[in-house]
Amino acid sequence: MPSNRSTPALPPAAGNGLLDRRLFLRGGAAALAGLSLAGARAAEAERQPWARTPGAGMRSYGAPSRHEDHVQRLGISAQPGTNGSGVSRTPLEHLEGTITPNGLMFERHHSGVPDIDPDRHELRIYGRVRRPLRFSMAALDRYPRVTRAYFLECSGNSGVMASAAQPPDLRCGELHGLISASEYTGVPLAALLDEAGLADGAAWVIAEGDDAARMSRSVPLEKAMDDGLLVLYQNGERLRPEHGYPLRLLLPGFEGNMSVKWLRHLHVTGAPAMSREETAKYSDLRPDGRARLFTFPMAVKSVITSPSPGLDLSGPGLYQISGLAWSGRGAVRSVEVSADGGQSWAPAHLEPPVLAKHLTRFRAAWQWNGAPARLLSRASDDTGAIQPTRPAWLARHGGGAFYHYNAIQAWAIDEHGRASNAYG
Amino acid sequence: MPSNRSTPALPPAAGNGLLDRRLFLRGGAAALAGLSLAGARAAEAERQPWARTPGAGMRSYGAPSRHEDHVQRLGISAQPGTNGSGVSRTPLEHLEGTITPNGLMFERHHSGVPDIDPDRHELRIYGRVRRPLRFSMAALDRYPRVTRAYFLECSGNSGVMASAAQPPDLRCGELHGLISASEYTGVPLAALLDEAGLADGAAWVIAEGDDAARMSRSVPLEKAMDDGLLVLYQNGERLRPEHGYPLRLLLPGFEGNMSVKWLRHLHVTGAPAMSREETAKYSDLRPDGRARLFTFPMAVKSVITSPSPGLDLSGPGLYQISGLAWSGRGAVRSVEVSADGGQSWAPAHLEPPVLAKHLTRFRAAWQWNGAPARLLSRASDDTGAIQPTRPAWLARHGGGAFYHYNAIQAWAIDEHGRASNAYG
Repeated sequence: MPSNRSTPALPPAAGNGLLDRRLFLRGGAAALAGLSLAGARAAEAERQPWARTPGAGMRSYGAPSRHEDHVQRLGISAQPGTNGSGVSRTPLEHLEGTITPNGLMFERHHSGVPDIDPDRHELRIYGRVRRPLRFSMAALDRYPRVTRAYFLECSGNSGVMASAAQPPDLRCGELHGLISASEYTGVPLAALLDEAGLADGAAWVIAEGDDAARMSRSVPLEKAMDDGLLVLYQNGERLRPEHGYPLRLLLPGFEGNMSVKWLRHLHVTGAPAMSREETAKYSDLRPDGRARLFTFPMAVKSVITSPSPGLDLSGPGLYQISGLAWSGRGAVRSVEVSADGGQSWAPAHLEPPVLAKHLTRFRAAWQWNGAPARLLSRASDDTGAIQPTRPAWLARHGGGAFYHYNAIQAWAIDEHGRASNAYG
Repeated sequence: MPSNRSTPALPPAAGNGLLDRRLFLRGGAAALAGLSLAGARAAEAERQPWARTPGAGMRSYGAPSRHEDHVQRLGISAQPGTNGSGVSRTPLEHLEGTITPNGLMFERHHSGVPDIDPDRHELRIYGRVRRPLRFSMAALDRYPRVTRAYFLECSGNSGVMASAAQPPDLRCGELHGLISASEYTGVPLAALLDEAGLADGAAWVIAEGDDAARMSRSVPLEKAMDDGLLVLYQNGERLRPEHGYPLRLLLPGFEGNMSVKWLRHLHVTGAPAMSREETAKYSDLRPDGRARLFTFPMAVKSVITSPSPGLDLSGPGLYQISGLAWSGRGAVRSVEVSADGGQSWAPAHLEPPVLAKHLTRFRAAWQWNGAPARLLSRASDDTGAIQPTRPAWLARHGGGAFYHYNAIQAWAIDEHGRASNAYG
């Protein structure tokens, strides 16, 4: 997109064209991409075809433009012999801001999506409690609600970046799209556990869903009582079926698998269940051949969503880097970006409000000179944790590791402006 | 929903059962609505039909549960002889939190929804500028973006409450559903006006859409340069067609009609256009028969969304009052609720973060004693403005007024727990 005006001198913040983030705050990182408009054509009378006749009417429930049909969940794949045991991914490279539309939130099901009648669904609390209780959905409507924005990330997100010898030729969402964020509204789990009354020895809560797999996970009681949420609404409306309608558990910042969908049972116990989904799966194989169980919080992480593979540059000039950062342990403290493969770093601008355990959108302006470049982002959180390089992550976790991958992501930009996945 | 346990004594905050909002913060306003669960039935083996066979598979773009088919836009109505000149409303009483799902955001079109090809759409800036410019959608992608959550309210929202002699027998969304809120991402309008360069005498910007009506409004330059936004994304994804795809103006806090959809022209002028939509319509008829033009910011306002007509109470006991508050001039400072028709008021809990020109969710706990009651909410903003009563609003604006109605809304609760619209 050539400009007919000269680009002003912009203050650099790091090597290879990264500009000062304060340019965002005062609006100075303008692309100068507007084309001159002849005065005579300015207020022209000609109309596009869509403006010549009255348009479509109102609809009971809207849908995206047909011109956005390419924006869909990615990499839908199911186990052989099933159609509902698998995943779909969020197309991060086509989205902006921090909220994921419900229609595009990633999915991970262990035996498909049940069609639950809310009038016949109930939640049961039993085990080491003084009063075993059951709650209809109507009963849950009587309890205090809270609204909070949180991310939810599958612990297997980005795992292919750990296990593949060569960088997979995939897009941002295909690599990292097992993450989404929403505004959730629900009942604090503590309110119901208080009502049931914790008995001696209560230390864990086994949460089980009412899908055909009866997916279950063991939750430390401390987490359940801290910020565990029984979610009824996501982004304003009732949960969608694939996200646990009519009731899901949400454990902010913890690996997504623990936020059990279609929640039916809360069994208070003295010890974890050691179920399949926390022993054979969702555990971390270590270099010595032993597996580490119970890695709950998702580590600090970031990814540049644009530019990224498929969103290529159209020639030298000014570009806006946009990306997402998050931490399961708290709030993002800073994100740095590099355009020279990590030799130098510039601080990115973080969009307010920066909320704990929610996605943070970061931005930086970059003057691309047309030569090959390598774009990286590196986040730190308010515990002081910072993203490792891929070699550092592998050295620590071992070659057999797959879950909880949070290393720095690099996009290589070639001289044609094409972006591709890269290691280091 | 009877309880098998006695309700603890809860500290009152105002008359007729309103409880202290601090109960929310420490989770003490429990409904005690859980029913006893016999131990033998706790971990029962019986399964609901939906859990007996594998469920549905992943989908490219999701949709709500079929059990939520009743949650749709309300009161769809068009001008005679058209199908796209009219409104639909957001079903506020079925939503929670602050974000409105894109599929349920209200609509107001003046000649239907155009089907715009983004590759053929452009924005033009001309008039009192030094360099008339045009921008393709690809060019706009090169500019700095910001992400902010804002409400958008039609100035005709709730107008029937001003004009009807008797309180209309309508639901919350039918009365007040010409408001929604979203997380918007776009380019600051100031960045493009700076690039075009304001010329002498520039004072207004006439924004015109590329629908068949060529809907246009005059925007004060000061507002355009302050926080005017050229929106590309809404709640993470590209704008929907009915909300201006591929480009709309957003003027935070101003009456919704000014946030021109399908934006194509920005004509910088020295005076307002005095177009139909700012003279014959969207102006305020005063008691003396003259009309007041250019009432831009939407006034401070609130409404209780639950309980509300159609969401009836099921018997005496504890209920959670939930509602929305907003102000076009800044942030909500406080919301008070009354259960005795305004004789006494209790402060409601405001869900954080409270953001300027965005919806704020408020909550309060209420112990209903089974007698007729009258629920009200009253918001104030950080300019010190507070919602008036309906008589006070009518006395100030006159009997012919319709736009910019922001008086206190009352719901009458009868002895059966039924809620209905009420005056005063």
